[in-house]
Amino acid sequence: MSVTAAQGFQAAGIAAGIKENGNPDLALVVNTGPRRAAAGVFTANRVKAAPVLWSQQVLKAGELRAVVLNSGGANACTGPQGFQDTHATAEKAAEVLGVGAGEVAVASTGLIGVTLPMDRLLPGVEKAAAELSAHGGEKAAIAIKTTDTVHKTSVATRDGWTVGGMAKGAGMLAPGLATMLVVLTTDADLPADELDRALREATRTTFDRVDSDGCMSTNDTVLLLASGASGTTPGSEEFAEAVREVCADLGRQLIGDAEGASKDIRVEVVNAATEDDAVEVGRSIARNNLLKCALHGEDPNWGRVLSAIGTTSAAFEPDRLNVAINGVWVCRNGSVGEDRGLVDMRYREIVITADLAAGEASAVIWTNDLTADYVHENSAYSS
Amino acid sequence: MSVTAAQGFQAAGIAAGIKENGNPDLALVVNTGPRRAAAGVFTANRVKAAPVLWSQQVLKAGELRAVVLNSGGANACTGPQGFQDTHATAEKAAEVLGVGAGEVAVASTGLIGVTLPMDRLLPGVEKAAAELSAHGGEKAAIAIKTTDTVHKTSVATRDGWTVGGMAKGAGMLAPGLATMLVVLTTDADLPADELDRALREATRTTFDRVDSDGCMSTNDTVLLLASGASGTTPGSEEFAEAVREVCADLGRQLIGDAEGASKDIRVEVVNAATEDDAVEVGRSIARNNLLKCALHGEDPNWGRVLSAIGTTSAAFEPDRLNVAINGVWVCRNGSVGEDRGLVDMRYREIVITADLAAGEASAVIWTNDLTADYVHENSAYSS
Repeated sequence: MSVTAAQGFQAAGIAAGIKENGNPDLALVVNTGPRRAAAGVFTANRVKAAPVLWSQQVLKAGELRAVVLNSGGANACTGPQGFQDTHATAEKAAEVLGVGAGEVAVASTGLIGVTLPMDRLLPGVEKAAAELSAHGGEKAAIAIKTTDTVHKTSVATRDGWTVGGMAKGAGMLAPGLATMLVVLTTDADLPADELDRALREATRTTFDRVDSDGCMSTNDTVLLLASGASGTTPGSEEFAEAVREVCADLGRQLIGDAEGASKDIRVEVVNAATEDDAVEVGRSIARNNLLKCALHGEDPNWGRVLSAIGTTSAAFEPDRLNVAINGVWVCRNGSVGEDRGLVDMRYREIVITADLAAGEASAVIWTNDLTADYVHENSAYSS
Repeated sequence: MSVTAAQGFQAAGIAAGIKENGNPDLALVVNTGPRRAAAGVFTANRVKAAPVLWSQQVLKAGELRAVVLNSGGANACTGPQGFQDTHATAEKAAEVLGVGAGEVAVASTGLIGVTLPMDRLLPGVEKAAAELSAHGGEKAAIAIKTTDTVHKTSVATRDGWTVGGMAKGAGMLAPGLATMLVVLTTDADLPADELDRALREATRTTFDRVDSDGCMSTNDTVLLLASGASGTTPGSEEFAEAVREVCADLGRQLIGDAEGASKDIRVEVVNAATEDDAVEVGRSIARNNLLKCALHGEDPNWGRVLSAIGTTSAAFEPDRLNVAINGVWVCRNGSVGEDRGLVDMRYREIVITADLAAGEASAVIWTNDLTADYVHENSAYSS
């Protein structure tokens, strides 16, 4: 289903030869209208890949006709040549689709610091355009994979309209977005500012709270395109909720497929003075390498949770902190609580609850354990 | 040599039975005078172990007669009982040494969230006192080891006076100090405020810039005791330099023995607008798990360096960044530079130079690679 679940969209995914192994590596998503409203959210990294710089500019007009996505190369840290290559990609798509280059967003993923093989990429755009189909969503989702073991799609269907989407991302997941490319589509009829509001609110509490390894990418891109093909204009709240649902589902799939991970860890921070405090504490716990190793070893090492909380500026008193692991309150009032032997950690999902006893705000951050497989995958990635 | 290199100090290291494997686990360092001036620097973690809370109080008077250190248990997150145990430890040392408990600092290291076996620790203090010797520095250094593979000592000898010290720490190394216990001694005759100034300045540019795994401990303690036994009062600058030399040497030994590490990584940030910018960028590079995996695999993945720099608030322009790995400028002006194939990464030490092209400030941060052995050691530590 993916990006073609909503009416008014076509997609394709093909092998252009960018990846040396011959796997699919180029996707095209086209909005056939009647509306072209669009919004985007991009990495907060100050070192931004060429396609991010391009797509940010394009989106200022609030309209998109198409998105070209490639795996097999991030086109980041590639200087003026990289920007020219992104521009040429948009021009090529514009030419074959009969639209303007300023209506085409570009997204790339793969190794940083390597220029793209344009002699293969540009013919690939033509080939993808020839294969565009209202059923091409799955193929598009497959073509944007890098080290992902599965492709990720999600759909939320409402009364008369739909939000669908695809995502890729399996490492370098971090706030300010994960290393991910996400394209969401809807056949709802909504203006760009409404899409922008819904998308920002959704990513703030979903993708921005997925923090697999604390590393922030140069390429993260989340786009939302609206065709208006359903002829329906949902209420703002209702629409925002559907977008959030799809983003949350895709975010959960990203964590479930994170490189080398053996555990999916839900960090719940409760009774914080503010939501910002809750997020800061959640991130600090999610990024603690020692804790992530302990959880990999199924060791309910709550001392490392407290140690991580103690590095934050959040409001709390050390002797009022409580921590539960999988529902067992192993730390009460900053000290030894229930028997840690009661904690059952055999399953893939682990829930850590940190009670700051400082207010009523809360937040959830998702992360993974740290494993030897993670080290292996990331030490061998480019060689 | 260690803490007994300077005149006016005795030390001992014994096996009290705190560690179940029977290894040495209790050290005692005594200042025999004639002066008792002392200073200390402690973890910035807001969750502080009982011995840290105790020693901070004791040091307010600027004098110390003795330090009791134990491995085999951190006495952190142990509530009121933990504080009572630290108090009892100081009382016992005071009793056997014929001094006041308020002149005895305590430092502990080991697992968080477990109370100490006081029935073994207190007799251990008596046993250590009976073995005090002006040659006991090495044994004391051995008794404070946890997962350290070697004990760490250092000495700086000047004209008529000496600074010596010992350190333990092999994981959880991070700013706001590494997980370490350090005791420095000198026979120089200096008041507490002078010791404090020299110690803070030395730790700021040495231990505070050792960041093995980004995790900040609950127990970090660095103490400096001055006996005045040399009868010499060195100049402030000269003294500060000797303290810095010992701290830098011990810090380098900590990195060289970090858990599971196969590479020691020197991150040099140059041409920063301010020293704070240089430190922020250095830490961000030093904490990037993806980069640390790549360096483990001897992959000169400079894209991950840029990606880490991009997450900071330091002054720089992305297209003016330069990065060298082991002297090869693989990234020039934010893009591809010299051939990455020229980078020789066979040796244990790796130097990453990040040129921000934004000013004249610089800083060095030391870190390690991320390895499967690190994961293994830290997933099995408490089980």
